[in-house]
Order: sequence, then C-alpha cells, then structure tokens
Amino acid sequence: MSPENTTQRLLFTLSYVGTDFCGFQLQENGRTVQGELEAAFARLAGVFVRVHGAGRTDSGVHAEGQVAHADIPWARRGLNWRRALNAVLPPDVAVRDVRLVESDWHARFDAVAKSYAYRLWLDREFVPPALKPFVWACGPLNVDAMREAAWHLMGRHDFRSFQNQGTPLEDTVRTLHKVSVRPGDSALEASEGHRTLFGGEQDERPWPELIWEFTADGFLKQMVRNLMGLLVAVGWGKITTEAVPDILAARNRAGYIPTAPAHGLTLLRVYYPGSRGKV
Amino acid sequence: MSPENTTQRLLFTLSYVGTDFCGFQLQENGRTVQGELEAAFARLAGVFVRVHGAGRTDSGVHAEGQVAHADIPWARRGLNWRRALNAVLPPDVAVRDVRLVESDWHARFDAVAKSYAYRLWLDREFVPPALKPFVWACGPLNVDAMREAAWHLMGRHDFRSFQNQGTPLEDTVRTLHKVSVRPGDSALEASEGHRTLFGGEQDERPWPELIWEFTADGFLKQMVRNLMGLLVAVGWGKITTEAVPDILAARNRAGYIPTAPAHGLTLLRVYYPGSRGKV
Repeated sequence: MSPENTTQRLLFTLSYVGTDFCGFQLQENGRTVQGELEAAFARLAGVFVRVHGAGRTDSGVHAEGQVAHADIPWARRGLNWRRALNAVLPPDVAVRDVRLVESDWHARFDAVAKSYAYRLWLDREFVPPALKPFVWACGPLNVDAMREAAWHLMGRHDFRSFQNQGTPLEDTVRTLHKVSVRPGDSALEASEGHRTLFGGEQDERPWPELIWEFTADGFLKQMVRNLMGLLVAVGWGKITTEAVPDILAARNRAGYIPTAPAHGLTLLRVYYPGSRGKV
Repeated sequence: MSPENTTQRLLFTLSYVGTDFCGFQLQENGRTVQGELEAAFARLAGVFVRVHGAGRTDSGVHAEGQVAHADIPWARRGLNWRRALNAVLPPDVAVRDVRLVESDWHARFDAVAKSYAYRLWLDREFVPPALKPFVWACGPLNVDAMREAAWHLMGRHDFRSFQNQGTPLEDTVRTLHKVSVRPGDSALEASEGHRTLFGGEQDERPWPELIWEFTADGFLKQMVRNLMGLLVAVGWGKITTEAVPDILAARNRAGYIPTAPAHGLTLLRVYYPGSRGKV
C-alpha cells in the first residue's frame, strides 16, 4: 500500500488564546497547542498523529490563523474534522478551517510569509477587563515618531539586533514587507459611526487602542516583540527615530530596548504560494 | 457640618467581564460587582461606602458602561479615584470614568435610558476562543426576517411577554427606542478594508458575527435576553414574523420562546439628562 493510500494530509487553520499555553510547540513540561491537538487526534483517530505547525509561537502569544498539517488515517477520511476536533478540544483552542493538501505539502517549509498583530492600549489607568489578556497597556505614545521609525525597519535587513540573545547563530536576514498601524475598534458601542470610550460624554475621547501589523517572509525568535518594544521606546521618547538605523546596523541585541510582552501579540496569518494567498 | 461637607458624591462608569460575577447587585452568596467595589472603597477610604448602581445586570452579563454612584469621605476628595480603584480592583472589573455629581444625583433614579449589545455568532462548529465568553453561537439565521420582526417590537408597548415569569407585577410598559443590527468586526486581521474569517483563502467568507443593539427607557427583568431569544427563534424559522405582534399582545411569557444566554449580553451605556447624553 502506498503512503497516499494509508493516510491523508490535512491542513488546519487554528485560533487560540495563548494565555494558558506554553506556546504552540510540544514541550517536555507545560501545556502546548500542539499537545492538545495531538491528544484530540489520538482520541478521534484512535492512533498517534503527529502535528506539524507553521512555526512556534512564544508562551502567551495568541493566534487567529496559525497553520498546521497532519496525516490522518485513510479510514477516517470521511470525518468532519472541523466539527469533530472542536467538539473535543479545550475552550482556548479551535479549528477554524480544514482542507485537503498534497501529501508533500508542509505547513512550515511551504510558508512564504507570516503576519502578526500587536495591540497597544494607551491609557495606563484603565484597561477594559475584556482586553487585558490581549493588549499591552504601554501608556501614551508619540505615534508619528513610531511611524517614522518603522520606515527604517521595513525591507530586507539583517535583523540580528531584534533576535533574542542566546539564540543559535543562523541566517538572520529577513524581509519585513509591512509595518502598519491603525486605531483599534474593540469597543462594542458604535456611536455615530465612530467608537467612544466615555459613555454619554459630549467631549468624546477616542478609544485608546492601536493595532500594529507586521508582515515578513519570516521572523526571528521574539523579533516582532523586539520590534514592537523598540517602536514603543520611540513612542515614549526614550529612543530617537534617528537612532533606529544604527540599532538595526549594530546586529547585536541592545539590552536597553524593551521586549514587548507576549500577551499583546497575535499571529494573524501564514501565507502560502497560490491559493493560500499572496503577500 | 452639612452633608455636603462630610462626603462628596461621585459617579463611576464601570466595565466588567460578567463571567465570574453573580451580576452587579450585592447578594448574600456569590461574588458581585457591587461587592468588589465596596471592598475596594473600604480599603481605600477606610470606611464603609455604599455603592448604588444604575441597575442590576444578570449573572454572567458583561458591561462596557455600567454606572454607579457613591459618597466618598470629604477627606479623600483629592484622591485620583480612577487610578486608585483600578489598582485594587480584581482584573475583571475596572473604572472607566469618575466624575463629581451633585449630592442628590442618583445613578438609578436619574437614568432615562439604557442600551445593550447582544453578540451572535453564526457558525456553530467554530467559535474563536477569544469570543466564546461573549457570543451566543446560535448558528445560521435569516437576518431579514429578524429585522422585520424587530420592527414590531419598537416603540411604546406593554412588554410583559418579555418579562421573566415569577417577577412581581408592576408597570411593564416600556419604550423601545432602537433595535439595530450590524456585522461584528472583532477579527484582528483587516484584509483590503474588510474582515475575513479564513486566512489566505481566495473565496473569503464574511466574519460570522452580528451585533444587535437595544435601547429603551428601561428594561424589565431579562427583557433584552427574551427579545433576543424571540428574534433568534424568528431567524431560525421557528417563529414567523407575523406571530410577533400576537406574542407582544399576549402580555404573558410564552415558554416556547428561548431566553438568550446571559454571556452574549453587554450593558453598553446608561443615559442621563443633559451632559450625560441624550437618546
């Protein structure tokens, strides 16, 4: 029997709240998304099924569109895997989409780009309780300065300065396709077409949330969190926009640049050639 | 010493995640928002301070803009109450706004209207984990039929049919100013100006979330949840739009109309005359 006849490769798009996970990838100790998925497959398929993710996410990082693949026993090919997995997975991880792929398709090796969102909250005194697990309450920022700093980061660079120390040396050149920012709109109340923070007030202040989006052909370990940390330091006025090219050129992680906390970060999407979307 | 000199009345706008609360109002047993607030005041003011809410919310119901008032000892008038309370309150309740009001201002008696949001999720198989505590995964709906049904409910009516059974009789006439629906946009990923559910897909399906908003001069016990339950039953095709006027006219709670679950509901705003906003 050929391998094609014994298993069927499926692609899974996954959403999770990272708060109670030690990241995506299996670990000796600690609860992981991969571990929960493999436990669910064992329960539904009756055999061990290895899950391959598009990449790790740090402990505490969330996902809207993480991607993984797995080879499912041929005998279970008729199962509605989306429904079946969501019925047995714990509440903090869910399968958004399932599709059939070729037996040589690979969630990690075939990925051509990824995008992440980082959510900032500009009011240190008050954070809406529903947002606390998802935003960094960094306080007021000079957003124009941050936007200017971001221009220096975009494009093809050696991003070693934004790789966590202690990571084994490798090729650290990446292409940052996009760094963008937009106002967050997580308030439920829609008032005259715009969101307001203070119910009933005439002098309506804007909802103090910013969503930064980063897209690259690949990210080094903690790279998004280190880029966001630098941009916030610029927004605080602690680092000048002019210093950013030097920091990038140093190819060495500077200890005075903060690493943005994991819980503000969400993996949005993994890009693949062809029908899985283009950058 | 006149009362004006011994205490100062403050208005508090509150946000909370209702999941772990037995509602707003103090209870013999069970954790409440009022209980947490009074504990925080006792800690910060050193004396017992009674909190008066604009109204109860059911166990499990959330709030973006609940309102309450309290009389603070005059000696503590200089405190930044917003910052101080948020530093000691548990993570699921926070003070959004504080302001000074006249000593006869009352959060409940002075309220002229309230608005609520109810969030529906139209995909029964997959609910994003971050949304699970906030949406009712009711499945697909005929939204046009619901909109038509909503028209019959708006305006001044005796809403006794939508009051929970066992509630003491009282004046059950209310004016429903507004019932509206709009697509939810809680996805972080913004794709070409619209939100998409399935990362990388060419055939992008809409994000299957609806936000219903209800504004009235007052709501009977569980009225929003019973109105939403009726509208969803219409959306499911279980009750016809034509039956809605009869259900309203019956002035009697019909057992076959579902009560929408508490966790989909959020109190958005309490309206007051003058500077606190108008309906």
